[in-house]
Amino acid sequence: MSRRELHLNLFVYPGGHHEAAWRHHGSDPARILDVEFYQDLARRAEAATFDGIFFADGPALADNVRYASRFRLEPFTWLSAIAAVTRRIGLIATASTTYSEPYNLARLFASLDHLSRGRAGWNIVTTGAPQAALNFGLDAHPVHAERYDRAREFLDVVTKLWDSWEDDALVADQETGLFADTDRIHAIDHEGPHLKVRGPLNTPRTPQGRPVYVQAGSSEDGRAFAARYAEAVFTAHQTLGNGQDFYADLKKRAAGLGRDPEKVLVLPGISPFIGSTEAEVRALHDEYNELTQPEYSLQLLHRMLGLRLTAEQLDGPVPRELIETGGERGNGSRFQVILDIIDREQPTVRGLLHRLAGARGHRVIAGTPEQVADQIQEWFEQGAADGFNVMPPGLPGGFDLFADQVVPILRARGLFRTAYTGTTLRDHYGLARPDSQYAA
Amino acid sequence: MSRRELHLNLFVYPGGHHEAAWRHHGSDPARILDVEFYQDLARRAEAATFDGIFFADGPALADNVRYASRFRLEPFTWLSAIAAVTRRIGLIATASTTYSEPYNLARLFASLDHLSRGRAGWNIVTTGAPQAALNFGLDAHPVHAERYDRAREFLDVVTKLWDSWEDDALVADQETGLFADTDRIHAIDHEGPHLKVRGPLNTPRTPQGRPVYVQAGSSEDGRAFAARYAEAVFTAHQTLGNGQDFYADLKKRAAGLGRDPEKVLVLPGISPFIGSTEAEVRALHDEYNELTQPEYSLQLLHRMLGLRLTAEQLDGPVPRELIETGGERGNGSRFQVILDIIDREQPTVRGLLHRLAGARGHRVIAGTPEQVADQIQEWFEQGAADGFNVMPPGLPGGFDLFADQVVPILRARGLFRTAYTGTTLRDHYGLARPDSQYAA
Repeated sequence: MSRRELHLNLFVYPGGHHEAAWRHHGSDPARILDVEFYQDLARRAEAATFDGIFFADGPALADNVRYASRFRLEPFTWLSAIAAVTRRIGLIATASTTYSEPYNLARLFASLDHLSRGRAGWNIVTTGAPQAALNFGLDAHPVHAERYDRAREFLDVVTKLWDSWEDDALVADQETGLFADTDRIHAIDHEGPHLKVRGPLNTPRTPQGRPVYVQAGSSEDGRAFAARYAEAVFTAHQTLGNGQDFYADLKKRAAGLGRDPEKVLVLPGISPFIGSTEAEVRALHDEYNELTQPEYSLQLLHRMLGLRLTAEQLDGPVPRELIETGGERGNGSRFQVILDIIDREQPTVRGLLHRLAGARGHRVIAGTPEQVADQIQEWFEQGAADGFNVMPPGLPGGFDLFADQVVPILRARGLFRTAYTGTTLRDHYGLARPDSQYAA
Repeated sequence: MSRRELHLNLFVYPGGHHEAAWRHHGSDPARILDVEFYQDLARRAEAATFDGIFFADGPALADNVRYASRFRLEPFTWLSAIAAVTRRIGLIATASTTYSEPYNLARLFASLDHLSRGRAGWNIVTTGAPQAALNFGLDAHPVHAERYDRAREFLDVVTKLWDSWEDDALVADQETGLFADTDRIHAIDHEGPHLKVRGPLNTPRTPQGRPVYVQAGSSEDGRAFAARYAEAVFTAHQTLGNGQDFYADLKKRAAGLGRDPEKVLVLPGISPFIGSTEAEVRALHDEYNELTQPEYSLQLLHRMLGLRLTAEQLDGPVPRELIETGGERGNGSRFQVILDIIDREQPTVRGLLHRLAGARGHRVIAGTPEQVADQIQEWFEQGAADGFNVMPPGLPGGFDLFADQVVPILRARGLFRTAYTGTTLRDHYGLARPDSQYAA
């Protein structure tokens, strides 16, 4: 279709996106490590013609795993198993430029793209969790600016590795005995401040050429990085105004770098609570909130805001003056989103915890299917989003409600596809396949 | 079954194990990157009740890719896609202790074991190819002793990571809200000469506890390492005597370290050329040899033996005196195997190249199905093997011949299973599931 098209990804978190989802009767904790559970979820997302399925990741154990389903499914293995049972849906893996070796990471993405026939996407992160450093031989997590500096160099290196085999380098001519035209396979000979990699990659060029570059940082460094490299940007905004500001800023930055702003998709996160009436939605939301555990939430608040509070303070106001502003925070832009909630809504501590429980700073949309579709349409048409990263509070039920009740409305309004028109994630996102930089 | 049982793995190389297999009419080069080709092969190996399917690997591009199908399929992604379409067969991934981060590698194996429900095996290598160093920021490949020193420490670290969640640490009790019993999740706090890793892993303990430890080095360092850690050893021997010597040596070393020698399986590589008559086998072998390319083979000879020869020397004797002995060779034990062939058989250069073309130092068994089965039985019963790593010269045809014609004979003789009796690779190999070292 030539008109502008909405894009939807399914964000997968073991146990669901709401912190207490695993405790809800709609969840089955016995299946949180069952690959068939996730394969089935991906099949449903594909049946709903979603653009992609998205796996978050981080190379360290969260400290609040006592209360929440916060272990990690390694994205490459898990998405490869999902690739095997799906045909069209994009497969987006989060991977860190701080805690990966570029050669190894380039291979994992190249193979995922080959075996899925062109459905790989890379959510590029520099890793926010400082405890990761201790799992990789470092005494301290590199500071934000240093992480981004390495990220830029890392991206340059892996891009060259993905380009190191030109498209026609694999010949495999049984008659002549020429397997690969080595004139079309290139050493990359990279030597920079952070990395030294000779190449070439040991894998022929992939169906998409490179995985789709996705990025989620919204800090100043993050925006500059996204404007330069990202083809899709995941972001968190609570209000239409904030969403519009971010959208306009990012598109302008991309255009300023000579890029087509339509090829940088902005996809905010939304966590939809859906019910057939507003009262039903409220009741569902209350059910989830009653399952939250203050010990967990208070830990989260400490990690996100530097606030150390006790259970006695739950029904008092948020002590705004104690929040540590500035300094080195893992997720600076998310931090600002939460500060804005506090300033705008003046919640009690418990109220804030419930706001964060649903999506940790991402936007919760609660309503009937029509109301949720209205919100999506508004952001899409009012310059705040090209689509959304859908983060169902509970899985699989929260996704099924969205797929069965919201998607048909979006389709009926002509906003969302009724069938895939292409086969790769680049096709779904409307992105061209990049040529190898080494091609003559 | 209580009696001793033969073990068989299928070794997968893109295009087949013989260097010219990709040129043979039995191959389809258009499918060498097609995941369904490999999934189908794994299904056939599972139908033949093989113990496992095995992926070699190395983090660099081979320099002779001009003539041979020597790119690499990344094992974790590829085996995860295979896991999704199989139920029983073991999945053995080669991974390097020299060029991996232990935290990342531990996660990949843990996830492969979870999603395959206990079928992961790790072929532990230190990486022989010196050019890998240049893809990982090093100026030179670490020397053999240093690589093994790091390998021992690496194995210690990843074993602790796999043990860091005790088996019952994942509670997921919806009523009490306890997701994980953090008293049963342990930091590993490792600090050694090569590695510093705090842990714990961010994944619950896996069905097998740890992947099966497989090892393929047969040098002095390699044997010592295998005797201490390996549960299955891949090795290359040309004669029954050499096979028996290695077998006896390894079992003795393991027993000397207090291990049960029956829990260290010795699995030599064999490349079977099968035909219904000896004349047919010879013709098949000749077909393959005629497809070999001297440019390729001479490169291989240079890499393996340090010999720089030209096409003019093909029909003369191997200049034994020019072979560089000693020093730092990537694959010291394979080097010795080839020297033995030269000394024993006094081949021409071309003759030696044809010997190596089939399996690069592994043993070629050429014969009728009965003859191949006889050879397998002899080694199995005469103290040279607990089973074999089967390396078909061409895929899929070379494997089908073995599965359809040799396996039934092995079964009829009571040597090989007719059905799986367990579900994990440990079950197939007769190995116990290890307890976590942190369990009380």
